[in-house]
Amino acid sequence: MSTTLARIAQVIESRKIENGGDPAKSYVAKLFAKGDDAILKKIGEEATETVMAAKDARVSGDASKVLYECADLWFHSMVMLANFGLTPQQVLDELARREGLSGLEEKAARKE
Amino acid sequence: MSTTLARIAQVIESRKIENGGDPAKSYVAKLFAKGDDAILKKIGEEATETVMAAKDARVSGDASKVLYECADLWFHSMVMLANFGLTPQQVLDELARREGLSGLEEKAARKE
Amino acid sequence: MSTTLARIAQVIESRKIENGGDPAKSYVAKLFAKGDDAILKKIGEEATETVMAAKDARVSGDASKVLYECADLWFHSMVMLANFGLTPQQVLDELARREGLSGLEEKAARKE
Amino acid sequence: MSTTLARIAQVIESRKIENGGDPAKSYVAKLFAKGDDAILKKIGEEATETVMAAKDARVSGDASKVLYECADLWFHSMVMLANFGLTPQQVLDELARREGLSGLEEKAARKE
Repeated sequence: MSTTLARIAQVIESRKIENGGDPAKSYVAKLFAKGDDAILKKIGEEATETVMAAKDARVSGDASKVLYECADLWFHSMVMLANFGLTPQQVLDELARREGLSGLEEKAARKE
Repeated sequence: MSTTLARIAQVIESRKIENGGDPAKSYVAKLFAKGDDAILKKIGEEATETVMAAKDARVSGDASKVLYECADLWFHSMVMLANFGLTPQQVLDELARREGLSGLEEKAARKE
Repeated sequence: MSTTLARIAQVIESRKIENGGDPAKSYVAKLFAKGDDAILKKIGEEATETVMAAKDARVSGDASKVLYECADLWFHSMVMLANFGLTPQQVLDELARREGLSGLEEKAARKE
Repeated sequence: MSTTLARIAQVIESRKIENGGDPAKSYVAKLFAKGDDAILKKIGEEATETVMAAKDARVSGDASKVLYECADLWFHSMVMLANFGLTPQQVLDELARREGLSGLEEKAARKE
């Protein structure tokens, strides 16, 4: 896997309360302490912020905020995955499984 | 970068209309042909489906749908990135830049 | 209550399968036949479309799409309410209860 | 129009900075001071919370949280409308215009 995703997943894991994460010191530990709803609310928020950043980028010509908000969205997705005992590697495996995009597209098309 | 993310980014890139993508044959080419709003609408949809899957998973005890919807969310994020000339590697770089989670957490905390 | 909201709630009610709604003829009956997830997915979609319309309106100077998408959002909210045996009157009652905006604001502030 | 919606729209209007709203004292005035993005972010958040409340309601059998979150969603929609110089009456007019649900359904079906 991407070493970046693996490293971030590892740090997130270390912030779980049962692994010694301290909600008073760590934002991620605080999310874990609050539980699913707080984490899922962030997914909704970050998706909305990504959409707004993309709309702004077409006006300003500066796409850096899109990158920034997408990073936030993926990061909070990883906190959610961790809270369900899942890893980003499993998401990559699912994406790989659907591949040669024939698979990806067939799947997406079915959902449309 | 993750070879999976790189491979998927490459296939997505090949689906752009200017690269010969055919909206009649490819779901991704169809999204590119429709443009930003169609892609961003999918980000909102997939985020909502991820939230619903997570709620279901706590009842059913089966987290596989969470994985599946998160893969959809990341996949459509990558279509958006491509439409802005961005790559998943740049998202990973942004995540790495914020690291040793001190950085990640400081950032997230500031936004709260 | 607003006669418009009451009338729409009544028509939505008549589209329930148990009230004779036909999924082959009616969009709302089709949503009821599909169930919660299809309806909730529309809430997420229409919220995203409202956000995009608002961003567009600041550029175009034409706010009519905001109105249009907000109507879609409220309409699908009413389908959801109906699926839970709730009415728009109850939403208005809840809003009234929180009032003299002191109440509304106190409540919203608490949630922030 | 519903007197509740009219009253709330009036209070929201009075919270605009140009009408003397004070961000230090009023949650709505604070939203107006922050501008579009802060308000639109709330639309995304409240839509996500509505979806989560609906999922919870099916498990708990208690739909009151759905009502509560839907009120939040409509309330923040009204703050957005006000920020674009629009009124809830115009949303009701748009809904009425689409009516005898034939119109509503035809419209929704076209969007699907």
